[in-house]
Amino acid sequence: MKELDLSSLAQYSGKKVLVTGGLGMIGSFAATEAVKYGAVVTILDNSLPEHGANIFNIDSVISKIKLIEGDIRDYDTVVEAVKGQDVIFHCAAHVSYTDSMKNPYLDLEINARGHLNVLEACRHFNTDAKLVFTSSRMRYGNVQSIPVKETQPTAPLMIYGAHKLLGEKYNEIYFRNYRIKYVNLVVPNPYGPRQQMMHHKYGLVNWFIRVAMEGGEISIFGDGEQVRDYIFVEDISNAILLAGIKDEAEATTMNLGNGAGTSLKTMVDTVVNTVGSGTVKHVEWPDNYFNIETGDYVADISKASLLGYAPNVSFAEGVKRTFDFYKENRRLYW
Amino acid sequence: MKELDLSSLAQYSGKKVLVTGGLGMIGSFAATEAVKYGAVVTILDNSLPEHGANIFNIDSVISKIKLIEGDIRDYDTVVEAVKGQDVIFHCAAHVSYTDSMKNPYLDLEINARGHLNVLEACRHFNTDAKLVFTSSRMRYGNVQSIPVKETQPTAPLMIYGAHKLLGEKYNEIYFRNYRIKYVNLVVPNPYGPRQQMMHHKYGLVNWFIRVAMEGGEISIFGDGEQVRDYIFVEDISNAILLAGIKDEAEATTMNLGNGAGTSLKTMVDTVVNTVGSGTVKHVEWPDNYFNIETGDYVADISKASLLGYAPNVSFAEGVKRTFDFYKENRRLYW
Repeated sequence: MKELDLSSLAQYSGKKVLVTGGLGMIGSFAATEAVKYGAVVTILDNSLPEHGANIFNIDSVISKIKLIEGDIRDYDTVVEAVKGQDVIFHCAAHVSYTDSMKNPYLDLEINARGHLNVLEACRHFNTDAKLVFTSSRMRYGNVQSIPVKETQPTAPLMIYGAHKLLGEKYNEIYFRNYRIKYVNLVVPNPYGPRQQMMHHKYGLVNWFIRVAMEGGEISIFGDGEQVRDYIFVEDISNAILLAGIKDEAEATTMNLGNGAGTSLKTMVDTVVNTVGSGTVKHVEWPDNYFNIETGDYVADISKASLLGYAPNVSFAEGVKRTFDFYKENRRLYW
Repeated sequence: MKELDLSSLAQYSGKKVLVTGGLGMIGSFAATEAVKYGAVVTILDNSLPEHGANIFNIDSVISKIKLIEGDIRDYDTVVEAVKGQDVIFHCAAHVSYTDSMKNPYLDLEINARGHLNVLEACRHFNTDAKLVFTSSRMRYGNVQSIPVKETQPTAPLMIYGAHKLLGEKYNEIYFRNYRIKYVNLVVPNPYGPRQQMMHHKYGLVNWFIRVAMEGGEISIFGDGEQVRDYIFVEDISNAILLAGIKDEAEATTMNLGNGAGTSLKTMVDTVVNTVGSGTVKHVEWPDNYFNIETGDYVADISKASLLGYAPNVSFAEGVKRTFDFYKENRRLYW
């Protein structure tokens, strides 16, 4: 395993960086880190209700960034935000895959049309910008074998995954036709501080931390042996910054991951033991669960490691830091 | 090579069939054939200017079908059209890949949202319908080797191809979640009678037939050795009908093709010799041509042959029948 190498991030000094969805968990970490390395950061975020935006997420840098309250679905807004930027972290998204099935049109508007708006704005007003796109492991659907390489077939099970995959294809097409540089980062199961905690539709680790903090009962489906690649938000943020600045990554798709899988059972035990409250209950699989069950998932991250990426936060450490954050800031998240 | 076997098409007797885009070249052939086998056919077509609709295309069956003049982008219209149908041939599309790059939003609206409308209408009002979708070889982009199997990587070079691929993914997702049966038919380079002839953006064979009929000059890029799999519209129509009725094809993606490749040079020579006028000129490749040049393409059609599909019309025969059609009906097409 290679070591994390962030030395190249010094190049962000003076760089103009746009973060779409910069008030959400992943976007706000990327924005905050970019500021730390001297970037001139603009955030575009619409604060859509029930989504991930929380102004407190950028509390530590709010005086140093420019915040555009606007929607990626509005082309003119996107054009104004994109002009003059050196790097764009495109993190804005409709995130819930269950909601993407309830209302595929909203997912289409945000994750397809909104993404097209970013690329069309680059095509017409800023072909020099480099785009870093947070795609999702949902692009794969059922995987054939683990660890998963980027070349495995892409067969999304949900509209959300189909549109994330479409976003990757858009990036490939705009590079081929207009030379707009991009990196598609395939994010597995993210968790960490700053995620919205109002509902459970964004990720189970955070949700279970909330349930445990409230002394509730956590349900485990089946034997709890199903494996996921839980990635701490700071590791994602490191990868985004590396992808945005490394010339080696000009037009490519790469997996992110924690370097190892964690079973559901271990995940839940870690949460309950870290929080010090909450109980665990084993239940049968729900009938319709096969629709979203993708089988075990662990990413092969050898491609991303060429950028200097390496997971830096163990799962136990990440859960601890997430819990510490919400213990301190709970009232701001639910 | 297996033989064409259309014996199963007798099952269309009394079946209710909806053809979206039924006034276009492919849709009108599928509609006309379905009528021939006793189906009760409805056509949904918006006659969008510059697209393929021509009321003359269904002249022979117009008294036997129901025509809804409506747009697949309008959900309520689609719902009314979809209710009660047994089989849906979804042929309506924004077809020009060059236009898909000029205005990706129009392509998104028709080929993504319009497609979603068909599936959402099935989900909520008719889960028993079976969908046959005319996808495109543009789903592949540059192919790795020929003949092309369905399992080759999908890397569209154009927005049109990305949205066609998305349509396939939608079908897979709606089958998995709601059991709506589908067949994705991957169509290579179609040609034949009834294609619009106002502009060159739908296919070179038809366009060259027009140019030759007008005594014009046909340009061949480079050495003319680039190979395509030109498929006659009647062969496509046979495949659509087979896919719609065969229980073996419940949820699958399959290539169509002519069973053999034809070089550009041979294609043009065939056109000029058949028409008996027109000249040929060899020119350099245009600078930006690499964007749409996919390399040689010949489909592996072994999967479709399991349905009874086999190409029935040689390229020479197809060009002759196409020329004969436009000789007779030219004034109705340009």
